[in-house]
Amino acid sequence: MDAILPKTSHSLDLQQRYLDVRSRSARICQGLNPEDFVIQSAEHVSPPKWHLAHTTWFFETFILQPHHKDYKLFHPEFNYIFNSYYESKGERLRRDKRGLLNRPRLAEVLEYRKHVDEAMLDWLGVQSHKENELMALFEIGLQHEMQHQELLYTDIKFILGHNPLQEAYSPEAREDRPGEVHGAGWIEMDAGLYHIGFDKSANAGFSFDNEHCRHRVFLEAYAIASTPVTYGEYVEFIESGAYDHFAYWHSEGWDWKCSNGIKSPMYMFCRDGKWMRYSLSGIIPVNMQCPVLHLSWYEAAAYAAWRGERLPTEQEWEAGSDRFAWGQSWEWTGSAYRPYPGYVQPKGAVGEYNGKFMINQMVLRGASPATYPGHSRSTYRNFFHPHYQWQFTGLRLARSI
Amino acid sequence: MDAILPKTSHSLDLQQRYLDVRSRSARICQGLNPEDFVIQSAEHVSPPKWHLAHTTWFFETFILQPHHKDYKLFHPEFNYIFNSYYESKGERLRRDKRGLLNRPRLAEVLEYRKHVDEAMLDWLGVQSHKENELMALFEIGLQHEMQHQELLYTDIKFILGHNPLQEAYSPEAREDRPGEVHGAGWIEMDAGLYHIGFDKSANAGFSFDNEHCRHRVFLEAYAIASTPVTYGEYVEFIESGAYDHFAYWHSEGWDWKCSNGIKSPMYMFCRDGKWMRYSLSGIIPVNMQCPVLHLSWYEAAAYAAWRGERLPTEQEWEAGSDRFAWGQSWEWTGSAYRPYPGYVQPKGAVGEYNGKFMINQMVLRGASPATYPGHSRSTYRNFFHPHYQWQFTGLRLARSI
Amino acid sequence: MDAILPKTSHSLDLQQRYLDVRSRSARICQGLNPEDFVIQSAEHVSPPKWHLAHTTWFFETFILQPHHKDYKLFHPEFNYIFNSYYESKGERLRRDKRGLLNRPRLAEVLEYRKHVDEAMLDWLGVQSHKENELMALFEIGLQHEMQHQELLYTDIKFILGHNPLQEAYSPEAREDRPGEVHGAGWIEMDAGLYHIGFDKSANAGFSFDNEHCRHRVFLEAYAIASTPVTYGEYVEFIESGAYDHFAYWHSEGWDWKCSNGIKSPMYMFCRDGKWMRYSLSGIIPVNMQCPVLHLSWYEAAAYAAWRGERLPTEQEWEAGSDRFAWGQSWEWTGSAYRPYPGYVQPKGAVGEYNGKFMINQMVLRGASPATYPGHSRSTYRNFFHPHYQWQFTGLRLARSI
Amino acid sequence: MDAILPKTSHSLDLQQRYLDVRSRSARICQGLNPEDFVIQSAEHVSPPKWHLAHTTWFFETFILQPHHKDYKLFHPEFNYIFNSYYESKGERLRRDKRGLLNRPRLAEVLEYRKHVDEAMLDWLGVQSHKENELMALFEIGLQHEMQHQELLYTDIKFILGHNPLQEAYSPEAREDRPGEVHGAGWIEMDAGLYHIGFDKSANAGFSFDNEHCRHRVFLEAYAIASTPVTYGEYVEFIESGAYDHFAYWHSEGWDWKCSNGIKSPMYMFCRDGKWMRYSLSGIIPVNMQCPVLHLSWYEAAAYAAWRGERLPTEQEWEAGSDRFAWGQSWEWTGSAYRPYPGYVQPKGAVGEYNGKFMINQMVLRGASPATYPGHSRSTYRNFFHPHYQWQFTGLRLARSI
Repeated sequence: MDAILPKTSHSLDLQQRYLDVRSRSARICQGLNPEDFVIQSAEHVSPPKWHLAHTTWFFETFILQPHHKDYKLFHPEFNYIFNSYYESKGERLRRDKRGLLNRPRLAEVLEYRKHVDEAMLDWLGVQSHKENELMALFEIGLQHEMQHQELLYTDIKFILGHNPLQEAYSPEAREDRPGEVHGAGWIEMDAGLYHIGFDKSANAGFSFDNEHCRHRVFLEAYAIASTPVTYGEYVEFIESGAYDHFAYWHSEGWDWKCSNGIKSPMYMFCRDGKWMRYSLSGIIPVNMQCPVLHLSWYEAAAYAAWRGERLPTEQEWEAGSDRFAWGQSWEWTGSAYRPYPGYVQPKGAVGEYNGKFMINQMVLRGASPATYPGHSRSTYRNFFHPHYQWQFTGLRLARSI
Repeated sequence: MDAILPKTSHSLDLQQRYLDVRSRSARICQGLNPEDFVIQSAEHVSPPKWHLAHTTWFFETFILQPHHKDYKLFHPEFNYIFNSYYESKGERLRRDKRGLLNRPRLAEVLEYRKHVDEAMLDWLGVQSHKENELMALFEIGLQHEMQHQELLYTDIKFILGHNPLQEAYSPEAREDRPGEVHGAGWIEMDAGLYHIGFDKSANAGFSFDNEHCRHRVFLEAYAIASTPVTYGEYVEFIESGAYDHFAYWHSEGWDWKCSNGIKSPMYMFCRDGKWMRYSLSGIIPVNMQCPVLHLSWYEAAAYAAWRGERLPTEQEWEAGSDRFAWGQSWEWTGSAYRPYPGYVQPKGAVGEYNGKFMINQMVLRGASPATYPGHSRSTYRNFFHPHYQWQFTGLRLARSI
Repeated sequence: MDAILPKTSHSLDLQQRYLDVRSRSARICQGLNPEDFVIQSAEHVSPPKWHLAHTTWFFETFILQPHHKDYKLFHPEFNYIFNSYYESKGERLRRDKRGLLNRPRLAEVLEYRKHVDEAMLDWLGVQSHKENELMALFEIGLQHEMQHQELLYTDIKFILGHNPLQEAYSPEAREDRPGEVHGAGWIEMDAGLYHIGFDKSANAGFSFDNEHCRHRVFLEAYAIASTPVTYGEYVEFIESGAYDHFAYWHSEGWDWKCSNGIKSPMYMFCRDGKWMRYSLSGIIPVNMQCPVLHLSWYEAAAYAAWRGERLPTEQEWEAGSDRFAWGQSWEWTGSAYRPYPGYVQPKGAVGEYNGKFMINQMVLRGASPATYPGHSRSTYRNFFHPHYQWQFTGLRLARSI
Repeated sequence: MDAILPKTSHSLDLQQRYLDVRSRSARICQGLNPEDFVIQSAEHVSPPKWHLAHTTWFFETFILQPHHKDYKLFHPEFNYIFNSYYESKGERLRRDKRGLLNRPRLAEVLEYRKHVDEAMLDWLGVQSHKENELMALFEIGLQHEMQHQELLYTDIKFILGHNPLQEAYSPEAREDRPGEVHGAGWIEMDAGLYHIGFDKSANAGFSFDNEHCRHRVFLEAYAIASTPVTYGEYVEFIESGAYDHFAYWHSEGWDWKCSNGIKSPMYMFCRDGKWMRYSLSGIIPVNMQCPVLHLSWYEAAAYAAWRGERLPTEQEWEAGSDRFAWGQSWEWTGSAYRPYPGYVQPKGAVGEYNGKFMINQMVLRGASPATYPGHSRSTYRNFFHPHYQWQFTGLRLARSI
């Protein structure tokens, strides 16, 4: 985790750190063709070019425009085009129209990145950045870009994987990280009071507002699996016919499954009796030892019901998280994404970052192979709607004891 | 609450209780015209005739068919027509098609009720009903009908209130029950362990599976309002322009509000500078002392944010509920509808009653003027999607201290 | 045809004729239950109560309000509720919302009819109606009601036939009128100039503006079938597998068929190897000698293509119409509904009757068992969108020679 | 017109002609960026890359595969991806999914073109092509590509013009061709018999099946305008408020206008009181002398009604076409697209070219600045749905006399 922490406010370090994060976005896109940058295969997926520009817009809008007095706006239309969801920043292109952005051209977006990067380096170099608030904003810009780097991976995978030709992103891309199978089993946790949330007093690193307000929760005794569910285990569920048996499913999950013709997690298919899947390195045989990926919350919950178990709450997950390995997949929990007691939405545009999404979404814990190294932590709260499969999502079982 | 408890399993008492509950459904519909019985003004609203038949189908399907050996099915098509959502009971009419049921005629549905009522009285009279499980099923049938009686009120109101003529249901219908305004204020609750859920060991009455599994929760110190929010208070929110200011709203709430042109809770409107509302007794001036009704969770949450407060969690509500009056409206809480620790979905069709809806809905606590007297209790968990306004919904504020 | 002609402008005759037409609407609805009057089973179908009120609104709006100086409006909201599509008459209830009209109650609509009828009789009796224009308007009101009487039959059939119980409208209702099978064959027509359109100089009877502007057309030699296509012939088409073979279908027809799962004309189905159909007298075996009913233009055109023939143009139909019997079904033609040369849309609201619908619809010629006796004539132009099956529609073949 | 006629079946001429047509498609796309090739801004618009590949697929599928015995298929998936609407050629990518084709890459599509071009040249060179049928197929392939070249222009314009940045396609692109304003007026045509359709006996050139079956029509006397309607004339219509007055509009046109917020032909807008429009050369002032472009049939018909005139039928247009200049825009006629008397749909896949679209579309006559030089002729029948604005469409007035 050290890698992501600003150990110093020394300008050179800050500039280096900025460049490290920013350059990785471009590196992720290196192998793509120009046409790959503009496709929006589904409303919830954004084109890579849009990600590259939007993360840049973030620094331009929240740091350079208000705080760099010589900054010259790159293009007057870009605020409209690359604002994602900040109502406080004015009118914006509808989300489902991001795939219509043949223009600005990729070359122009790369220039935009360069233009903003130079101004940011200038700003980081010259000014005195003692002010905590500004540094926090800068850090949010970096963390925001890290999050979009994960989205770049999932969206590129979606775009390539939903094209009829299903070409590989890169032969070297590795999604599979086997869980520690030896010693897999149940970790028992006593009933009792646990502290939940990020401990700011003990930890100098970055954290998001949605994990603040450390507080006590009482957990009844429970057990949590030491490893996530594997493809092998999940295939048993599929092959038992559970996708055709309503009893394991939530009502809305059953409707979702039926009306979308879902028969497995995304990218999996059975060919000549053998389970295969599309991965960033192309079509590969399913590795039965590895954590299952790309399932919706509905599928995770149905799987748990079929096993006679359940999903852990996010508090159960966090309380037990130092007793198991995690990071192979984002793990759906049984908890809806709601504020912690004492949570107060920050004022201004930054307040739109998290709080306004705290309804109708489920919390995921952990991290995935696509997560920026060190970006996540045991208190980190990721969240998605329960029907989404396109992230690197899996699950871990729990039970009350 | 006594009224709803089966104090004895003596047949005469059971028959009387059955008739009490059943006859009230018909009484609620007494003032309607035949045409009122078949309208489905929106997908989530069911026609009164459907409610009358569906509650009857429930007894026929779960009690008479499996447990009354001489029972003669009333009509072979009714299982298809009047099954609401029980996958285990086979194919059924799509929910949004309930408004196409001109046939069976109302008279036939009333006959159906009579036919089933006679068989039920017979079954209650002759057999020995020592078996707990069967009695539990019978009780669920009654509770189910009570719930549909509330829906009859809300659906009749919706049907009449969305007709261009907005005629009254009955001049005597009273929705307004002023809160105890004197002494209104904040009730402070200490941090500590609280027991949540229905206590079966201490209470012989009926309860639903979703409130079972009494368990401990730790609550940080908080305060909860002694009265629900009134129309007067809510009008301040409207008149402040808050419906046009995104900062108070969840992102999905803002979209819902914009795309549906929502400017107030359902049935309220301003005419010549005076706030009016459609009620079951017709169009009346808004009584500013009474609890505001018919708001969505999005509006409740936005109102709380505008006041700088928040909604209570369902645990906070329950823990404090013996210190305030409730029952004037269903009160939106900040809790998503999820199972209690230890919850296990019952086997069979009854298992479809609650568990499969535990996603994407928010918990409401309390009761409304339309609730069957004594049907609710402080552990009762009602639930709806956050965008629905058509129930008698309101809110109570809370804050962390 | 005599029956519908105002032979005199004598008041008593006019009053009698008015009552004849008006009373028939109520008679058509005699056997219905109150609930049947309010159902709108599809957007293009209107509830019977709406038909009864809308035809009344027509007289109230176009005759009584402007021309009867003592007329007292029945209800201020009815113009909003019962205006069908007259933009010049102000805002109106959306067409797809007609099924939400539980109120006004049926009794009130019948009172409305009585109120308007009395005023109309009064107006017909007292005033001198020499003015041609007013009499023409009055006649349009009657013709309009006749057209809605046919719609009453087709909409009642749709409502009852799409209800899961498929009850009969009346045991006496007769839809089947066998074609003159003896001597069935091809009628050959020479190439030449033909006069098309209603001949006002030779004919005193009523006609619609869309059939005026009698003009000359040149037809190349052709043949037209002496009888419409029968169920027996159409069943061959179905059983040949033609519904699964795109080559006979228009592209939009194929898409319509596929996405709606159409496998036959409306109301037909095969049970235990036997073709049955829902008719106004209930479910009956298909009479193979009778004209096929309830097919879309797409099906009619596909059938013709499968036989290697085609549909006649409306001019070919009209030119040959005195050489064959017609009236068993509305017959789809190959002509789009467009104005005749010289057609000028009348000024004012009456101009909205026909002209504004002259796009994207196909012309039908003939009449059906549900048509008001004598209402149609060989120059009459009926029209519907090509995907509609719910009228009593059939076809007659033609070929070029 | 000479340019497009195969004067000889000599191989060298055929090869040259093939290359002339084919190379022009690539030339049209020369100035585009790779990202421009993959955008589908609306369902009816196809990405340029798709056009380039689909026209190639046409030759591969209809000529090379069946008739070139050494032909090696370029890619097994391309039949699925680049088939437009030929049911006889198997399953295909849904039309609205063409914008998801980041792969195959542009480079691969250009290779595909090269691969097919080489095989075609080989086929044209080596074989003896005396067979009329094969040569007709070859010619259809060329004509098909010419049609797609016009679509390339209209789709590129749509893609660039609907992007927030509205960049120019090329500074040299010229859309405006003023009509012959001097001497503009009405051309009177006598009543009488006219021959309509392509005269194969007198004309060796290519024509489509939909213009065959030359036949006689009788036209009542009429007059037709010598020039198309200009921007100047159309602006009077707009500024008169006619877009807000239902009386000029067809019912479906009015609904289309209202629900899409249409206030003018596509690409036109008023800025600071001055009419501007987006053209292929960027945003330019409207030239009031030039024919108005990009209007729907609904707008054309409403304009004519507002002037008290009408659209000519396609027969009136054709009969008068040697007395006026045409070619500045596709001119909407008052005729629905239906087969000529005697029309028989060709057998096989070629039969899917025209006949199956003969419903719900309106005929356009003329040609536009985007039409392949010489591709059109006075008997040519173009057709689109009445709500489309994205082609270079205009109108010419007519009246009955």
